[in-house]
Amino acid sequence: MDLTNKWLYEPNWSWNPSTEQSGYVHDWIQKIGEGKTPPDCILYGAPLSKSSISVSGASLYPEVFRKLWKQFATYNFDEDIDLSSYKVADAGDILMHTTDVAESHRRIEIATNALKQTFPSSTLCMIGGDHSTTACAIRGLKREQPNRTIGILQLDTHLDVRDPAEYGPANGTPIRQLIEQGIVRGEHVVNIGLHGYYNTKSLVEYAKKHHIRTHSLKAARKKGVSALIEQELKWLSSQTDLIYVTVDMDVIDISFAPGVPAATPGGMRTEELFEGLLTIGKYPAVNHIDFVCLDPSRDSRIEETCRIGVHAWLQFMTGRMMCK
Amino acid sequence: MDLTNKWLYEPNWSWNPSTEQSGYVHDWIQKIGEGKTPPDCILYGAPLSKSSISVSGASLYPEVFRKLWKQFATYNFDEDIDLSSYKVADAGDILMHTTDVAESHRRIEIATNALKQTFPSSTLCMIGGDHSTTACAIRGLKREQPNRTIGILQLDTHLDVRDPAEYGPANGTPIRQLIEQGIVRGEHVVNIGLHGYYNTKSLVEYAKKHHIRTHSLKAARKKGVSALIEQELKWLSSQTDLIYVTVDMDVIDISFAPGVPAATPGGMRTEELFEGLLTIGKYPAVNHIDFVCLDPSRDSRIEETCRIGVHAWLQFMTGRMMCK
Amino acid sequence: MDLTNKWLYEPNWSWNPSTEQSGYVHDWIQKIGEGKTPPDCILYGAPLSKSSISVSGASLYPEVFRKLWKQFATYNFDEDIDLSSYKVADAGDILMHTTDVAESHRRIEIATNALKQTFPSSTLCMIGGDHSTTACAIRGLKREQPNRTIGILQLDTHLDVRDPAEYGPANGTPIRQLIEQGIVRGEHVVNIGLHGYYNTKSLVEYAKKHHIRTHSLKAARKKGVSALIEQELKWLSSQTDLIYVTVDMDVIDISFAPGVPAATPGGMRTEELFEGLLTIGKYPAVNHIDFVCLDPSRDSRIEETCRIGVHAWLQFMTGRMMCK
Amino acid sequence: MDLTNKWLYEPNWSWNPSTEQSGYVHDWIQKIGEGKTPPDCILYGAPLSKSSISVSGASLYPEVFRKLWKQFATYNFDEDIDLSSYKVADAGDILMHTTDVAESHRRIEIATNALKQTFPSSTLCMIGGDHSTTACAIRGLKREQPNRTIGILQLDTHLDVRDPAEYGPANGTPIRQLIEQGIVRGEHVVNIGLHGYYNTKSLVEYAKKHHIRTHSLKAARKKGVSALIEQELKWLSSQTDLIYVTVDMDVIDISFAPGVPAATPGGMRTEELFEGLLTIGKYPAVNHIDFVCLDPSRDSRIEETCRIGVHAWLQFMTGRMMCK
Amino acid sequence: MDLTNKWLYEPNWSWNPSTEQSGYVHDWIQKIGEGKTPPDCILYGAPLSKSSISVSGASLYPEVFRKLWKQFATYNFDEDIDLSSYKVADAGDILMHTTDVAESHRRIEIATNALKQTFPSSTLCMIGGDHSTTACAIRGLKREQPNRTIGILQLDTHLDVRDPAEYGPANGTPIRQLIEQGIVRGEHVVNIGLHGYYNTKSLVEYAKKHHIRTHSLKAARKKGVSALIEQELKWLSSQTDLIYVTVDMDVIDISFAPGVPAATPGGMRTEELFEGLLTIGKYPAVNHIDFVCLDPSRDSRIEETCRIGVHAWLQFMTGRMMCK
Amino acid sequence: MDLTNKWLYEPNWSWNPSTEQSGYVHDWIQKIGEGKTPPDCILYGAPLSKSSISVSGASLYPEVFRKLWKQFATYNFDEDIDLSSYKVADAGDILMHTTDVAESHRRIEIATNALKQTFPSSTLCMIGGDHSTTACAIRGLKREQPNRTIGILQLDTHLDVRDPAEYGPANGTPIRQLIEQGIVRGEHVVNIGLHGYYNTKSLVEYAKKHHIRTHSLKAARKKGVSALIEQELKWLSSQTDLIYVTVDMDVIDISFAPGVPAATPGGMRTEELFEGLLTIGKYPAVNHIDFVCLDPSRDSRIEETCRIGVHAWLQFMTGRMMCK
Repeated sequence: MDLTNKWLYEPNWSWNPSTEQSGYVHDWIQKIGEGKTPPDCILYGAPLSKSSISVSGASLYPEVFRKLWKQFATYNFDEDIDLSSYKVADAGDILMHTTDVAESHRRIEIATNALKQTFPSSTLCMIGGDHSTTACAIRGLKREQPNRTIGILQLDTHLDVRDPAEYGPANGTPIRQLIEQGIVRGEHVVNIGLHGYYNTKSLVEYAKKHHIRTHSLKAARKKGVSALIEQELKWLSSQTDLIYVTVDMDVIDISFAPGVPAATPGGMRTEELFEGLLTIGKYPAVNHIDFVCLDPSRDSRIEETCRIGVHAWLQFMTGRMMCK
Repeated sequence: MDLTNKWLYEPNWSWNPSTEQSGYVHDWIQKIGEGKTPPDCILYGAPLSKSSISVSGASLYPEVFRKLWKQFATYNFDEDIDLSSYKVADAGDILMHTTDVAESHRRIEIATNALKQTFPSSTLCMIGGDHSTTACAIRGLKREQPNRTIGILQLDTHLDVRDPAEYGPANGTPIRQLIEQGIVRGEHVVNIGLHGYYNTKSLVEYAKKHHIRTHSLKAARKKGVSALIEQELKWLSSQTDLIYVTVDMDVIDISFAPGVPAATPGGMRTEELFEGLLTIGKYPAVNHIDFVCLDPSRDSRIEETCRIGVHAWLQFMTGRMMCK
Repeated sequence: MDLTNKWLYEPNWSWNPSTEQSGYVHDWIQKIGEGKTPPDCILYGAPLSKSSISVSGASLYPEVFRKLWKQFATYNFDEDIDLSSYKVADAGDILMHTTDVAESHRRIEIATNALKQTFPSSTLCMIGGDHSTTACAIRGLKREQPNRTIGILQLDTHLDVRDPAEYGPANGTPIRQLIEQGIVRGEHVVNIGLHGYYNTKSLVEYAKKHHIRTHSLKAARKKGVSALIEQELKWLSSQTDLIYVTVDMDVIDISFAPGVPAATPGGMRTEELFEGLLTIGKYPAVNHIDFVCLDPSRDSRIEETCRIGVHAWLQFMTGRMMCK
Repeated sequence: MDLTNKWLYEPNWSWNPSTEQSGYVHDWIQKIGEGKTPPDCILYGAPLSKSSISVSGASLYPEVFRKLWKQFATYNFDEDIDLSSYKVADAGDILMHTTDVAESHRRIEIATNALKQTFPSSTLCMIGGDHSTTACAIRGLKREQPNRTIGILQLDTHLDVRDPAEYGPANGTPIRQLIEQGIVRGEHVVNIGLHGYYNTKSLVEYAKKHHIRTHSLKAARKKGVSALIEQELKWLSSQTDLIYVTVDMDVIDISFAPGVPAATPGGMRTEELFEGLLTIGKYPAVNHIDFVCLDPSRDSRIEETCRIGVHAWLQFMTGRMMCK
Repeated sequence: MDLTNKWLYEPNWSWNPSTEQSGYVHDWIQKIGEGKTPPDCILYGAPLSKSSISVSGASLYPEVFRKLWKQFATYNFDEDIDLSSYKVADAGDILMHTTDVAESHRRIEIATNALKQTFPSSTLCMIGGDHSTTACAIRGLKREQPNRTIGILQLDTHLDVRDPAEYGPANGTPIRQLIEQGIVRGEHVVNIGLHGYYNTKSLVEYAKKHHIRTHSLKAARKKGVSALIEQELKWLSSQTDLIYVTVDMDVIDISFAPGVPAATPGGMRTEELFEGLLTIGKYPAVNHIDFVCLDPSRDSRIEETCRIGVHAWLQFMTGRMMCK
Repeated sequence: MDLTNKWLYEPNWSWNPSTEQSGYVHDWIQKIGEGKTPPDCILYGAPLSKSSISVSGASLYPEVFRKLWKQFATYNFDEDIDLSSYKVADAGDILMHTTDVAESHRRIEIATNALKQTFPSSTLCMIGGDHSTTACAIRGLKREQPNRTIGILQLDTHLDVRDPAEYGPANGTPIRQLIEQGIVRGEHVVNIGLHGYYNTKSLVEYAKKHHIRTHSLKAARKKGVSALIEQELKWLSSQTDLIYVTVDMDVIDISFAPGVPAATPGGMRTEELFEGLLTIGKYPAVNHIDFVCLDPSRDSRIEETCRIGVHAWLQFMTGRMMCK
């Protein structure tokens, strides 16, 4: 792993031996380093939202995430699980270019690749940024092991299969980019959370044509969101080598989400999302997760959406801990 | 239909033969005209809220409704229904008088009457404005066919039977106006959504005395809100010739509704409202619907309540399409 | 009862014979006085939040509570109960010292004691203020009848057992104060509403060590929040002489609670709280209730959290009325 | 004066002998009554804004004005003047009709007339409401003494001479109403505060045609706003029997006025307004003043515009006191 | 001029002969076309803010500008000037690329060049977008007539000479880009509005080294902002062939500018800006002006900053009219 | 200086030799330590606002001050002064007690005393907190050298001489506390900024009786705020040994100050305050300054008031630098 690309990581990425002392934030994060056990999970930020079709400040989320995270306890009361012994390393944020979006995308791809290469057994967790970053991360994983088949579980209100030829590699296009670039096959993409009037007919037809497995929220609720997630993870793991989970925070209902401009009426309740993430965390084949499209600059004074974002991530951690 | 009353309609009402070209907004609205098929649904705005007991900007809703509507897709993911072939004509807004509320009320009555007369087979959909506009619209329908019995399904937190003798034809009085004027009989009014501490004892007694069929939200939930709506629509259609549905947006819980000053704790969840409107849309005897009391000037920055309003209306449309 | 301590009560406390005329607000509150029936319930405010660890304006809640209360009807539609005949006296606010928190705490204790002594058969209802006021009120009750065993039902997101040695008698410490002072035994404290990542491991261990009966919200929902409350009230009444209920408004989900800075994701829905309070109200052994930690200065423009607070209190009243 | 019109005054109008005890709010307001000295100033509210062309909550201002007024001291530090000995009576609010704007206007006219008749020597001060109330008040004064010539000093960003034939007696029309009705002559109207791009050419031409004396803010500043006001008051008092001052709060710059939706860039600074009102207050021929178009429901959290409104009114009072 | 680049202009650019009918918005904008008089001024939008160092929604300003513009009158009261006869054509917005900032920059350059070529005698007015657009526009002008010397008058709180090598062509770099690319010479750049602690020492040194003429706001006020502007325009016109004026809206004081995130304490008052723009407008050598860095998504509810922006632009128009 | 009182300073106070490495924030702050030159200025926070009569979050200001400070340059453009060589040490915040206000006050007194003792030649700068902290700091200075006469220059809208016997040592009482305790004599207190209706007659009489030198803002403007400040500093230095300056941020006009709940209409403009602080900074006899009563939790989204606070402090620093 080449650390001479100085833009790769902000100085607080410290699992590099020489700076390992300060690499962990939060009281439940322990030190790692050469010759030591790699961390259970590596957190890194992709603060990019200039790739968004609408104005977005999602680039600010990694910083707010870290500030708020420290205000949460490590103990989950509902599950009686203490996360203190689950090792999370914070690799810091990937330095974005101010004006060159393509370059920023490239850096996300390379950084993800480097992280995976260096810590093959650690779960990677990327904090976005907008949804365009997902395509970069997955390309980075693919580049690392081109022969592995990647499956995607997407929790989203939208299909995100707009045409890159029209928008460039923008936040509405990641799934289509991956399909068109041959990185992921349509039938290995599962989307749960679709509902209402938020995807055009033509995009739905694209999804059908490419055999994306879509589940409306109404259908999901009939089975139970968590139960459906479990079923789909099983299916994905029977078909693919590696499962990547992407959580577009616009999947939650607009009443929970002043900080997600793309949230809509009729979306997922936080309770459903939290249960779903516990289920996802428990699933060993899940290797990488991201949380995207949360814009702190639109959030309420009490930062409710960002707090929901941290809680959601901790649910995943709790699941991990339970399957450790 | 006399178009010499120039205040009747804003210029964008274009199913008048001479201007039919520009009459439809949105990509799924097709042209109509003389000798052509009438539209499935006619949308018109009644931008009046000076009749409100409290300060209200609900008069601004029709304009915001149209702006946001264009941001919704025509495809409903949950029901796999595409609304493109459902024909909606936008008749524009009825021009309100700046200071003469009675005159504005009269115009709503006449305009509704004219629309019904010209397009007897089309579903009418009025976007308010406050709840006083409902009484006007129903008077307009009655005037058109005095012998028809009209039933009302009201989704509301309040009974809206305050005394017109005290308030004038204000937004708290429409149901009582209609009963006292002999337009509608109390037993033909069904109200679902009542709950909590938001109707005084004396108003409840008035409702009982006039045999208004009231259902508390708690009772509705025991049966299922949609199931109860279906039951009551059946009953109404067995007793009346025509069903008018009025949705006072204050029926939804206050946590969903920064833009509805009269919303209260313990109200309907949007999910319940959306399911209910699908059921209503499916019911052929429903002939006219309105959505009232949503004040965009109080809404949140992301316009969540107005978006809920558009989503709610689209649910009704989807139901229509399903029973077409 | 010594009324020479002029700081004890604001002038609107009027069940003192000489001023009884003006003592009742709201139309359903009737007059009481010497030789007359004592009120069913006595409301009093403890406008103190300088004891809060974070900045809090919860001291403003009693005033806002009274302003909003008058906008609610006395009739509960869901239960078909009219509260007009339930007698509530408003004892006004206890006058707080501007800079001496210990003195303010002492006054709350003395005032509660005086109220209990003067009106032993009335239900007391204290409007906070922050959670430190609960410890004072319970000390006041204990002082009145030292031999009585007091049980606590706490609806809360937090345990509130931080160490008074570290924080002083602050809002995070009331339960621990009472246990350490021997006022209440740990096994007589029941907490329902705990969830997520909002209590540290060490505080949970303190609770376990002292046999506090904790129920996570997830567990509560499996049984039903109301059903669990009923079960625990039964248990408490089998073990203690008197049940004190404390409702920390941060128990409700953050999406309902812009006005409760400590509210969190994954909290109780208002519907659950409202049903729970009905159950509590119906339980005769419940003798004192408080509502704390609601900060009107953070609330939304439509004062949604404060309205939820009043609705919650009325649910308790309705329960009382039903068991009268 | 006929008090049988019960809508005329809210019960807190207490200079009626039988209720004089409670008629004065604030510590510097003394009692008046029959056989006693009439008050120096009579304050009354005209809570009407349904006559506004745009949505307005200016009807809420009298209530907020009274609440905030009590938070101001009676002592003016800059002028070393204590207002305690200046007698102000609060006549309460005129009761407005919920839906009949014309009736509300008639009540303002009658009430003003009655006040002037009963207390000919007192300065009247009307708190609006929107600018349509000014026309009513002046008609009320004229009716009282038809032969007196009335002059108007208007501090305003707009001419307010829109055509009543088009808008009805709305808030954009008062000056034109008065000219067309022969109540006031155009050359007896002075407007200071006009600026920028906020009056159309045709309205300016109307003003010129009717010889309204207009002064742009830029011109006013060259002379000094206060000096110009003094000059124009002199001129008005040489031409008319009675001077009515109307302060449309939209005259102040938009940066001071979140609570005045019609405020504009380039408006008057509060400092200029405050000095101007001191000058106006000092002028004995000024007999009636109003403050209109301030909408508390749009104001900032700290109610800055409403506080500016109270401060402005107190400057007038201070001027009065200085010329007493 | 090649119109085959379809991204160049939105459809409302209509001085192209075939669509001239709809090309003018606002009532004071008249039609132009081939063989007719070219417009006095051509307005065009550059809705780009992805080039901003911080999150910015300045890309939304052109749309809001046009919406609000229609609410202003054409008559300037202070100067007694009617703009009706001043011809403004709205060329619409340049279509930006969703993710490729360099491409967007290139389009601004080409479009400006094309506009200048086609309408050499018209004043161009560009509505940003962020400050990076200024460099593009000036490059466009330069490309049109490479031999002409361009002078810049910049009203700004910042020097905007950060290093493009570090930031790319971002909003903090336009002046430095132009100097380094040899488009404009440092001594032909005049900056008025600099103040306080908002430029680092090293940037000031860069400015000095390149002989940028800087004037602190404190110094400007000693002379008079308008007088200084006039002096500097004279100097610029003696040294250059063409003057480009760029108004970074962050020059105004933070108290006027909730919608300009980069505004600072101690900035220009709107009154000073408005007078300055009148002076600028009067100066014939000024050939192109832009207004940048105003972010409507941060503005207050009453859109005060955007209104200030429109007013500022109209002041320039008024100046133009006066020197016509 | 006794560092065994561990509550005295937060860990970032690092000019203690053992931790000197990390003690300076900002790039223009250099290291100090034993045997080295003492800092020019020592900054310390007094995060206490539980002593406020109204709810206040001014305790949050020191933290926000430090966050924003880092966003300002060290170079002052107007004065062409670079602060890099002016040495500021950040002593961190004094640790406040959660519930014991008297104890917190005692700590401020002791900490100020210790700082003065250890660094007699450094200017002390305290960031509040509310105005009660001023009395503590001055007591701390007095305790250090009981024989020195202390003069106070107060920039304030209020006299702050309410009676401690009534309020305790609250934020409305500091000047009276000091006079009654014999720490400062009334005639050595100068207050500039008083205006309007914000001090009661009786408080003004107290001030007169104790010969406090008061200047209304109107009078100050006649002379020039800065000129008056200079004159009064001269007078104070002729009468006293040491000048303490206290800036209650409520002195600025309400339109600049969403974050100062006590700000009022008619207050000081920021421009006046900034010039005044430059003058104060230049005056060598000024030995200690504080900035109080700024509540970040009420500030606008763009934190305008807090930014004004930092700018104001930097003006004082610039003045210091100029007289160094």
